[in-house]
Amino acid sequence: VTTQLWYWPDFPGRGEFVRLYMEAAEIEYEDMARLEGADALVEDMHARQGIRPFAPPYLVDGEVCVAQTPLILTYLQDREGLGSGELETDLQLVQLQMDIADLVEEVFRTHHPVAPGLHYADQMDAAYEMAHDFRENRLPKYLIHFENAVAASGGPFVRGQQWRHVDTSLFQLIEGLDHAFPRLMEHFRGHFPYLEGVQATVPDIEGVAAYLASERRIDFNEDGIFRFYEELDQQ
Amino acid sequence: VTTQLWYWPDFPGRGEFVRLYMEAAEIEYEDMARLEGADALVEDMHARQGIRPFAPPYLVDGEVCVAQTPLILTYLQDREGLGSGELETDLQLVQLQMDIADLVEEVFRTHHPVAPGLHYADQMDAAYEMAHDFRENRLPKYLIHFENAVAASGGPFVRGQQWRHVDTSLFQLIEGLDHAFPRLMEHFRGHFPYLEGVQATVPDIEGVAAYLASERRIDFNEDGIFRFYEELDQQ
Repeated sequence: VTTQLWYWPDFPGRGEFVRLYMEAAEIEYEDMARLEGADALVEDMHARQGIRPFAPPYLVDGEVCVAQTPLILTYLQDREGLGSGELETDLQLVQLQMDIADLVEEVFRTHHPVAPGLHYADQMDAAYEMAHDFRENRLPKYLIHFENAVAASGGPFVRGQQWRHVDTSLFQLIEGLDHAFPRLMEHFRGHFPYLEGVQATVPDIEGVAAYLASERRIDFNEDGIFRFYEELDQQ
Repeated sequence: VTTQLWYWPDFPGRGEFVRLYMEAAEIEYEDMARLEGADALVEDMHARQGIRPFAPPYLVDGEVCVAQTPLILTYLQDREGLGSGELETDLQLVQLQMDIADLVEEVFRTHHPVAPGLHYADQMDAAYEMAHDFRENRLPKYLIHFENAVAASGGPFVRGQQWRHVDTSLFQLIEGLDHAFPRLMEHFRGHFPYLEGVQATVPDIEGVAAYLASERRIDFNEDGIFRFYEELDQQ
């Protein structure tokens, strides 16, 4: 049985955090909605019984169906024997992954503060205010938090020499922020050396290097989580 | 060593999901910030090294410090031997717990859509729009999701006769929604019989009954996640 990933096919979004980890760990998977389309994703999700995903991404592995990005990554880590073997360390890594997921949600809300189902153009006033607070308060607070986490090990990765799922996720997060807030991130350059270290080092992981050079990698665009709207990146 | 819970002392918020589970499972704990005050919480959190909590609640158990509500609950479940023993079931319960955490965040954003650090009065226009979408679209979608999850087992709990951490959390969630959106929840009455079943049955758990009758239980108020603002509950 091949591991199946179900996620929207046209933007990196939350699914990319799962793809990147599987590519780094060289786990074989089928990217179902890229093979069969977004309608197939909606159909598959709604056909599931009992406790089912509230939203993509989700992973199907034989009888197991698991949603929520941090949980998917933990499941894969444990299945592949890629955990640290220490309960406290593994807990801290899941915790950081959940902090990343919270920040990703806040990034989404910079352009959709009022309703995920409405267009950006219909909530621009609130978006402008939300993005201001995000740039001034929320994002710096999160970046300091992640910088401290990596600094504690001395780098280059969050747990030192061996990369973990948190590292591929931090890479994707910073890449996304560079896309969505280029002015702001340029302003931050040099202030978070450990995070810059993670961003620079993750592409050297063999599986990641192959992935980034492939057509499987989906570029950032203005349909996903990390969107560039110039007016939301004003200082 | 006694288990220590750190959370803001003056409103139920996210900490109450942890309290309720510990009370249901009759786990002894010290509610640190209720003993020592909110300043002690801020001081304790900032004094922690390395990978530390981004925000309360967090649990301290000897050398282990763990944050993020779903992770705290999973940690306690495993420590106490209260898991189902089946990987797929335990994964689904964490997943539901993370869905609950997402909904709790959306509830918070009904009154704080723009910035958690600003007062409600400074973001009322966006809050009004956000709450409208929440009532019309987001909340019904979540309630259907949780109703289906419980219905799959036949009730009264999400996994049948034996209560799990998801049940105490669903109880707290519905209680909070009844406080924050009384008109709307009255309108929904009878539409989600399995969720009403969880809400009616959790107080019969011995530890929960004792807790709800005690002074340890914190009432909902207008400082936490679930706030009653009449204008956000208009049909």
